[in-house]
Amino acid sequence: MATTLSFHSPSKPTSHFRFRLKPKPSPPLFAKVSFFRCRASVQTLVAVEPEPVFTSVKTFAPATVANLGPGFDFLGCAVDGLGDHVTLRVDPSVRAGEILISEITGTATKLSTNPLRNCAGIAAIATMKMLGIRSVGLSLDLHKGLPLGSGLGSSAASAAAAAVAVNEIFGRKLRKEELVLAGLESEAKVSGYHADNIAPAIMGGFVLIRSYEPLDLKPLRFPSDKDLFFVLVSPEFEAPTKKMRAALPAEIPMAHHVWNSSQAAALVAAVLEGDVVMLGKALSGDRVVEPTRAPLIPGMEAVKKAALEAGAFGCTISGAGPTAVAVVDVEEKGEEIGEKMVEAFMKVGNLKSVASVKKLDKIGARLVSSISS
Amino acid sequence: MATTLSFHSPSKPTSHFRFRLKPKPSPPLFAKVSFFRCRASVQTLVAVEPEPVFTSVKTFAPATVANLGPGFDFLGCAVDGLGDHVTLRVDPSVRAGEILISEITGTATKLSTNPLRNCAGIAAIATMKMLGIRSVGLSLDLHKGLPLGSGLGSSAASAAAAAVAVNEIFGRKLRKEELVLAGLESEAKVSGYHADNIAPAIMGGFVLIRSYEPLDLKPLRFPSDKDLFFVLVSPEFEAPTKKMRAALPAEIPMAHHVWNSSQAAALVAAVLEGDVVMLGKALSGDRVVEPTRAPLIPGMEAVKKAALEAGAFGCTISGAGPTAVAVVDVEEKGEEIGEKMVEAFMKVGNLKSVASVKKLDKIGARLVSSISS
Repeated sequence: MATTLSFHSPSKPTSHFRFRLKPKPSPPLFAKVSFFRCRASVQTLVAVEPEPVFTSVKTFAPATVANLGPGFDFLGCAVDGLGDHVTLRVDPSVRAGEILISEITGTATKLSTNPLRNCAGIAAIATMKMLGIRSVGLSLDLHKGLPLGSGLGSSAASAAAAAVAVNEIFGRKLRKEELVLAGLESEAKVSGYHADNIAPAIMGGFVLIRSYEPLDLKPLRFPSDKDLFFVLVSPEFEAPTKKMRAALPAEIPMAHHVWNSSQAAALVAAVLEGDVVMLGKALSGDRVVEPTRAPLIPGMEAVKKAALEAGAFGCTISGAGPTAVAVVDVEEKGEEIGEKMVEAFMKVGNLKSVASVKKLDKIGARLVSSISS
Repeated sequence: MATTLSFHSPSKPTSHFRFRLKPKPSPPLFAKVSFFRCRASVQTLVAVEPEPVFTSVKTFAPATVANLGPGFDFLGCAVDGLGDHVTLRVDPSVRAGEILISEITGTATKLSTNPLRNCAGIAAIATMKMLGIRSVGLSLDLHKGLPLGSGLGSSAASAAAAAVAVNEIFGRKLRKEELVLAGLESEAKVSGYHADNIAPAIMGGFVLIRSYEPLDLKPLRFPSDKDLFFVLVSPEFEAPTKKMRAALPAEIPMAHHVWNSSQAAALVAAVLEGDVVMLGKALSGDRVVEPTRAPLIPGMEAVKKAALEAGAFGCTISGAGPTAVAVVDVEEKGEEIGEKMVEAFMKVGNLKSVASVKKLDKIGARLVSSISS
């Protein structure tokens, strides 16, 4: 059942609604409120409630590869051609200040349509709150292009598409970095307070999260004249984020800490200089996280070996898995590598899998189409 | 007493001499030998023994700041205007294939003149071995511009100046990366097998050490149109490397590992983009090494606080200390910050100290003058 959610209804309190605005008698102009205190819920950032500039928008947000080996929990990138769509409409049948999720289609149709229990819903609500929307009701359709639990940032893609849709329909008043905060509200509920999927899903390219309090995001520009392809191989296997997180060591030996830090540093240098060979070496060099998680995904070690033997510059687990990600600089080579990885998943892990070769998505969540009001 | 050292004298074996060449009946041209196996001693890299192209050379190698906070054990940079000089002569009075340290002047005159116990001597010998020098005797003068145990790469500066001097006098047959291996022979004896001082001392600028086996050095180019100044404040206090190393934790909590890795990654991005503000934040953000070492240097925490309050973008311990290093983008501001840091060392640590403001040295160890043969 679709659920509507009051966004601003002091007369009808909803006890489970975190995002209700407190009355503000005289909101300052573009108030510099404490929205950077990220673990608190988001705050209104615009002084005057904006009016919709479209009656309807359609947005897309890409899949993301987080962690990237030694970049565990602070580095991620967006990949082109895979992702989720959101269609958002100004809907006079929805109460002002509320949002309705009217339809979910695609790869994951069993998701809740309760906006408070749906990634797209939570991010949309948070964005409405940032914009101070009280006078317009919205309805949202979510089309999932990404399966859940694949390690490709499925929840972040939904959240990113929704946050951008709300921002676009009201005339793009918020910056991308601000929308990351709306997405973080969603991520915190489903997979933990980590921006390494939601930041690249919204901003595109590679993004380094230097700190959370305050949130300090560093986009890393991969040179436009260099080629980089991701070979993504997703097996039919469930690798729940919680289980993968529980596998992590609580303490790291100093030698491994130094090694992994140096690989993370080299990875960033490789991204900025477009050095795909070094990028691969650094991505492959994780001695902290991958060794504890790879054994939980049947065949993963063999898949990595197969990728490297087939010419990949590096290979690791995408996000918390089970997708394996390899990097290379020629698309055709990526396809050959993907075949070998699929073979290895079947041969050693006894798992069916599908391979795809994708480019870096440099744009992030974006407006696809709009109908003007 | 000056000591001569046989570099190639099968007729007069010296049992303590690690660098003696094994007879090679037919050495291949520019043999690709296993010199990248760094923990073994260096190997000869040139097929035909080169002749000297100068009768005398004078070289300089700069001071270096290693660690840079979260770059512990894998990142360092060279600073301009401080360092050691080496004068090297073809000396017919020295037996062929041998080297004599004839004089040590400057800030540290009590160093051994036994080439096997002197940083410059060890690096010179290793470089002679790489070049396959058997027919020429050399004498070396070392002028120390850096005090010992300051945390500014004193031993690396001597080793770098010596390695470059030997390479220059024989016509520069070795690449800078190869000379780092010669310097590593020296560093391994005095402060551990770490290239984070010797690599920038030889190569200049910032250098990231991605791996040791094989040695993989990544120079990080700071943009030429940006300004970066190091405020170096050295107190009269001994901070022995061994004691500072013993203070390190054996295990790191996962949260600190992730944080420090992200700071190291941000530090590299900041260097490559010339973002001195982020460079400072990342440099200052070490939660692993600095918190264990700073309390061993009286006043260090107050010095850091004083630097930041005076406008430094970041501050940490240089190398294993006791020198404190702060970063800023205006030289005059650096001088003000240095004064505040000196005051804090005296007030809180009861230590006299001297401050200097230095630029990045982008060249590394270099030929200063030469006399042709």
